[in-house]
Amino acid sequence: MKKKDQRTAEGILFTDQYQLTMAQVYFRSGCHLCPAQFDHFFRSYPDYGLHKAGYCINAGLEWLLDWMEQAHFREEDIRYLKQQKNRVGKPLFQDDFLDWLRNDFSFSSLDLYAIPEGRVVHPNVPLSVVRGPLAVAQVLETALLNQLNFQTLIATKAARISESGRGQLLLEFGLRRAHGTGANAGARAAMIGGADFTSNVGISHVLGYPPKGTHAHSMIQTFLAMGLKEIDAFRAYAEIYPDDCLLLVDTIDTLESGVPNAIKVFEELRKQGHKPVGVRLDSGDLAYLSIQAAKMLNAAGFPDTKIVLSNNLDELVIWQIITQVEEEAPRYGVDPDHLIKRLVYGVGTRLITSHGSCSLGGVYKLVALKCHGKWTPAIKISDTPQKTPNPGHKKVWRIYDHRGKATADLITLEDEDPLKKKQLLLRNPFDPVKKRKLAANQFSYIEPLHEPILVNGKQVYQSPGIEEIRKIRKNDIERLDPGIRRLMNPHIYHVSISQKLWELKAGLIEQIREQNHQKNKS
Amino acid sequence: MKKKDQRTAEGILFTDQYQLTMAQVYFRSGCHLCPAQFDHFFRSYPDYGLHKAGYCINAGLEWLLDWMEQAHFREEDIRYLKQQKNRVGKPLFQDDFLDWLRNDFSFSSLDLYAIPEGRVVHPNVPLSVVRGPLAVAQVLETALLNQLNFQTLIATKAARISESGRGQLLLEFGLRRAHGTGANAGARAAMIGGADFTSNVGISHVLGYPPKGTHAHSMIQTFLAMGLKEIDAFRAYAEIYPDDCLLLVDTIDTLESGVPNAIKVFEELRKQGHKPVGVRLDSGDLAYLSIQAAKMLNAAGFPDTKIVLSNNLDELVIWQIITQVEEEAPRYGVDPDHLIKRLVYGVGTRLITSHGSCSLGGVYKLVALKCHGKWTPAIKISDTPQKTPNPGHKKVWRIYDHRGKATADLITLEDEDPLKKKQLLLRNPFDPVKKRKLAANQFSYIEPLHEPILVNGKQVYQSPGIEEIRKIRKNDIERLDPGIRRLMNPHIYHVSISQKLWELKAGLIEQIREQNHQKNKS
Repeated sequence: MKKKDQRTAEGILFTDQYQLTMAQVYFRSGCHLCPAQFDHFFRSYPDYGLHKAGYCINAGLEWLLDWMEQAHFREEDIRYLKQQKNRVGKPLFQDDFLDWLRNDFSFSSLDLYAIPEGRVVHPNVPLSVVRGPLAVAQVLETALLNQLNFQTLIATKAARISESGRGQLLLEFGLRRAHGTGANAGARAAMIGGADFTSNVGISHVLGYPPKGTHAHSMIQTFLAMGLKEIDAFRAYAEIYPDDCLLLVDTIDTLESGVPNAIKVFEELRKQGHKPVGVRLDSGDLAYLSIQAAKMLNAAGFPDTKIVLSNNLDELVIWQIITQVEEEAPRYGVDPDHLIKRLVYGVGTRLITSHGSCSLGGVYKLVALKCHGKWTPAIKISDTPQKTPNPGHKKVWRIYDHRGKATADLITLEDEDPLKKKQLLLRNPFDPVKKRKLAANQFSYIEPLHEPILVNGKQVYQSPGIEEIRKIRKNDIERLDPGIRRLMNPHIYHVSISQKLWELKAGLIEQIREQNHQKNKS
Repeated sequence: MKKKDQRTAEGILFTDQYQLTMAQVYFRSGCHLCPAQFDHFFRSYPDYGLHKAGYCINAGLEWLLDWMEQAHFREEDIRYLKQQKNRVGKPLFQDDFLDWLRNDFSFSSLDLYAIPEGRVVHPNVPLSVVRGPLAVAQVLETALLNQLNFQTLIATKAARISESGRGQLLLEFGLRRAHGTGANAGARAAMIGGADFTSNVGISHVLGYPPKGTHAHSMIQTFLAMGLKEIDAFRAYAEIYPDDCLLLVDTIDTLESGVPNAIKVFEELRKQGHKPVGVRLDSGDLAYLSIQAAKMLNAAGFPDTKIVLSNNLDELVIWQIITQVEEEAPRYGVDPDHLIKRLVYGVGTRLITSHGSCSLGGVYKLVALKCHGKWTPAIKISDTPQKTPNPGHKKVWRIYDHRGKATADLITLEDEDPLKKKQLLLRNPFDPVKKRKLAANQFSYIEPLHEPILVNGKQVYQSPGIEEIRKIRKNDIERLDPGIRRLMNPHIYHVSISQKLWELKAGLIEQIREQNHQKNKS
């Protein structure tokens, strides 16, 4: 895409057409400035097929704020809308509406409350709450969902892969298989979720990290095509990067050629006073090969060199590799714990695309509207109770038990304060029978999850750096019960609603059903 | 992301770190300017789990060319590389190398041959061939793969969905679930592959199409929250868009409320001389509901209104809907063919993420290097023969039978001309036993697939507009055997190599095996 076109395609028009046609309906109906509240949340954890997440990692807020700050209707955008025609060749958008978009439309008229990036989040809990003029809040929908859905999806996948690798160094390698420039948002989210570095140079620059990477098979092939040998390629690499020498050993034959040649070069480096970094395995049975490579490296006196694994890794593959290493390494005289602690994981495609579940179904629903000076909760009844969002203004709380583990998220109405209650009633959001009472001595503390982000047109929130967000994530994951963290069949974390919210929702559903019933009788 | 950062993250540094560390090895070894050839191809069709593609649609070239034209090492990029440190705190990149990047590195030193966008393509066939200075061609890898992998993936999915919908209007609705700004490349690719329009306003502007979209559930909810009814929302919409009135009818109850209310409003529009467009169904059993909606619309005298379906559609879901309509519509007095021809498909998540197979494994492999004035074919031996790329300079041909259907793609060496041969020998690229002879009277014509794109630093290729690319795709798909187009278990299209290429490859493999064997003996 040309640069000029990119500014158009990624600005305020990075939206769905129906946001604009609806905005014109609101404008014409005179309700475009009515205060409205939209909740953003997702309905279920990513389901990867054989396995499923038990928690998500929230991400994307900072980039959304950057977009909101920049996006506005430029003259060129207005011109494009002006020339859109309806089916009988007349303008689709009227001049007065376009004037309003040009002169008065601004995201700074919105308030935004949100759960910060890096925090563990769960289904049906509002992650972001947008309040402001109906037409403005409506037009924000698409871009908000695009940014937050994707980054949360990838941060979640990264957290799983990092967990499965037992916190060993995790490198994001997916740029070539990512969905276009979404690669950069994906790499950022991966860093938030658990990747320690990325091979992506540009985003490393932007985020303030050194990018990671050494060489590919093509470097070995180049030397072979020049009539030289694998070891000549290794030596050329070692000469230039004597203190960063990590060699890819599977171009010809990992155990017959790659590792022995790497060891020769490592010995040469050692004589010159350099410390070799390690080897990378990119094909074959990575568990078996890493044991054999470790054995050879140990025997040659390089027990501290890293063994980087890559090639279609994900949380399950890594889990299997570790399991196999634990079982088989002793048979070859290799200490499995020592080996597992020298492993590094380079994860490409399956991290940056969230393999198995490549989208997060985050939604953005109208939950309240202020008309004639009074807020009215809004509801959409669905055949499946799971799809009926919680109406009205709400607050979100996290309750911790005496071990310091999160035991439930509680959604209340805005005027409720569970901190002041002696006993909490946690209701299942959908099942009228399921409820749970928590006496004050059954939990240690309650934490509100939303923070004010945009208030009265001002950003009151200072977005923390990635390193700080990574700490938030680490801290939150540690406060999850191990059952929730389990890779497969995780225990289901409780997301509950308060009795007052239950009653509001049930009353509204009843009211709409009643209206429909009467209409059908009449 | 801030605009300034975006320029950094999407410019020349939109690459993997190892491209740069390798480039420095080439620079230091004096081979950075040696002419090299890299082939770009994919190894297998997208496998969606229950179903698998039998062909792909090539896409992404124009945007790659735009990127190549803009990307260069800016002062800021060089500064970032300069400050990168190795493990002992010294600069990772040397000044002379950085000077070369700044002053001499240019993608205009590359030649590029490629199969045009929109064409049907198959595994192991080079889609793009890059020839030029080793270090420059190497650094292109990541961005080339990022752009071409993703757009080809999505164009392919769109073609499948369009096929399954029997060519009925297909709308791309996936912006909110796309991978960040990759949404735009995805929407473009969807248009190439088979989507007729997209809801994405910005990319519609850039590509010169009107965006599509009407209203969401939130518009109905807004009117309900104001104390009004669904029909009031419909009327408000119809008043503003009397000639474009397409109403979403499932907010309250599709058949009890939505469709009857829509019909009332359509009748009012008809009285005023307007032609209503139709209804959209976004939940429930879309096959059953579309039959019932059709019945009601027919009875009210609106047999020509469209019925737009959306909600997690993909090629299989659409296929099932059509099958069910064919079986069940007659029972309700609805002509199934007539109904199928009024259906429109709005496909979001599952198109823009290529649900079931969300990445394409395109690769970029060194196949030849010119050193000491002589081109040497390069090969990488792999344990799996499927992963050993075809070495050397090659040409790609498509052979058509007497029905005008494509019967095979043939990869030959560059100096071969199958047009001059009386009989063709098509060898399976991997299996030494499988071969097929074609006498001249057994095929109608042979077409070379590569076109020159960049030659001697100049773009000699004029990228056609999307409408033209769509024609190319349509034309190519029509020339596929129906078995290849089948959604499930497609017939396998033949990709063959010539006898001369077979001999070159076999000889090189033998030669490398021999060298290894001798090394192991010594």
